Amino acid sequence: MNDTLKLIQSHRSIRSYTDQAVSAAMLDEIIRAAWRGPTSMNAQEISLVVVRDAAKRARIAEIAGGQAWIAQAPVFITLVIDFHKTCLGVGKAGQTQIIQESMEGFGVAAVDAGITLANLMTAARSQGLGIVPIGGIRRNPQAMIDLLELPPLTFPLVGLCLGHIAVDAPQKPRMDIRTFCHFERYDASSYAAAIDAYDETIMAYWQQLGRSDGITWSQNLGNSLKQVYFPEVKPVAAKQGLLNDK
Amino acid sequence: MNDTLKLIQSHRSIRSYTDQAVSAAMLDEIIRAAWRGPTSMNAQEISLVVVRDAAKRARIAEIAGGQAWIAQAPVFITLVIDFHKTCLGVGKAGQTQIIQESMEGFGVAAVDAGITLANLMTAARSQGLGIVPIGGIRRNPQAMIDLLELPPLTFPLVGLCLGHIAVDAPQKPRMDIRTFCHFERYDASSYAAAIDAYDETIMAYWQQLGRSDGITWSQNLGNSLKQVYFPEVKPVAAKQGLLNDK
Repeated sequence: MNDTLKLIQSHRSIRSYTDQAVSAAMLDEIIRAAWRGPTSMNAQEISLVVVRDAAKRARIAEIAGGQAWIAQAPVFITLVIDFHKTCLGVGKAGQTQIIQESMEGFGVAAVDAGITLANLMTAARSQGLGIVPIGGIRRNPQAMIDLLELPPLTFPLVGLCLGHIAVDAPQKPRMDIRTFCHFERYDASSYAAAIDAYDETIMAYWQQLGRSDGITWSQNLGNSLKQVYFPEVKPVAAKQGLLNDK
Repeated sequence: MNDTLKLIQSHRSIRSYTDQAVSAAMLDEIIRAAWRGPTSMNAQEISLVVVRDAAKRARIAEIAGGQAWIAQAPVFITLVIDFHKTCLGVGKAGQTQIIQESMEGFGVAAVDAGITLANLMTAARSQGLGIVPIGGIRRNPQAMIDLLELPPLTFPLVGLCLGHIAVDAPQKPRMDIRTFCHFERYDASSYAAAIDAYDETIMAYWQQLGRSDGITWSQNLGNSLKQVYFPEVKPVAAKQGLLNDK
């Protein structure tokens, strides 16, 4: 197996960082890797905001619901849906941009943000750094907009901590790969048994880590997905002009 | 620079494939790489459907608006938002899942699909294969649902061709990296000049390739983003139970 496969297959989230800075050269290679990723229609509708300022990182940690590793890791990158940038191109062509009013537009931009995020993670990990993706900035997207001075037609979708690893983490088990990958047609016949087995696997994993507060995958999703986890997303996106109505 | 950085920074889309099959061992490593990627809340709400059947690939090529490389490349992978799988866990926990009715839920799943897609691409390219991501399946999502037998609470979001490269492709230039990456705060002051320069760069790129039908980035976005490019996304997603209303 080649080094890149080994690297991706060993993915894990790190929540403990040293105070060593990430060098400008390392960070530049990571950003260039993400910059080269594809975007739908070559729209290039994702922008990054790199935050190294400690006070700003402390504020983001707070916005995200008290995630200490955001204040600890020396670099935090926010991935921004940027229909402001594309709007300038559309306007130059004499047209009026409306893609930001559609579910299609939001979905495409979120996919492209995910591609960008994965490239940032893989590029960082290839240089020995640790990473943890952060959805918690959507807890209060308006606060992120204010902090990063984001204009209309943009939205802060997801973030990433990166830095040198203080304490490594084990890899979390995944559900049976047959629930992830289907051949020729979708077939959910293995799901119920796989979920039961995975709930046991996850409990054993928590026990191994000495985490007495661990719950099953099913319980975790029951708690999380019975609600709109970050209800500010839709109203703040709408205020920014991302309407999702079409 | 390490091999992984070189690989990601050399990303390009391939639209010409040999008829050589992708070995089961190669495909397995690619799928395992994607399987190990992170998902928000560890929800594992992305499923893949791998299609190798030639008749099915020909049908997908047609659904996507006549993209010959889908019929030509030996493997096509559809990335499916899978709130059916998570719903079984939520139900097991005695709760009712409602995340699929929200913009937050759709956005998270699309980000996770993007991460999965990037890992598939990088893992395939690390083994010397070519790839091209395919958004065109959203032109007619209902036809993909029928073809892959997708149940309620799922949605076919994006696809990927992979196979052995027949004709390599040049790397498409990107807009000035300062329009992609901001430091500490968002700053669009360089955008207008960068767009003008990039429109010229893209025209020179088309000329170099002998493509007389090439248009600028701005013209391309003017044509594409003045409309909802794939208007079937919202109604078909709604029919599947992905409402985006909250």
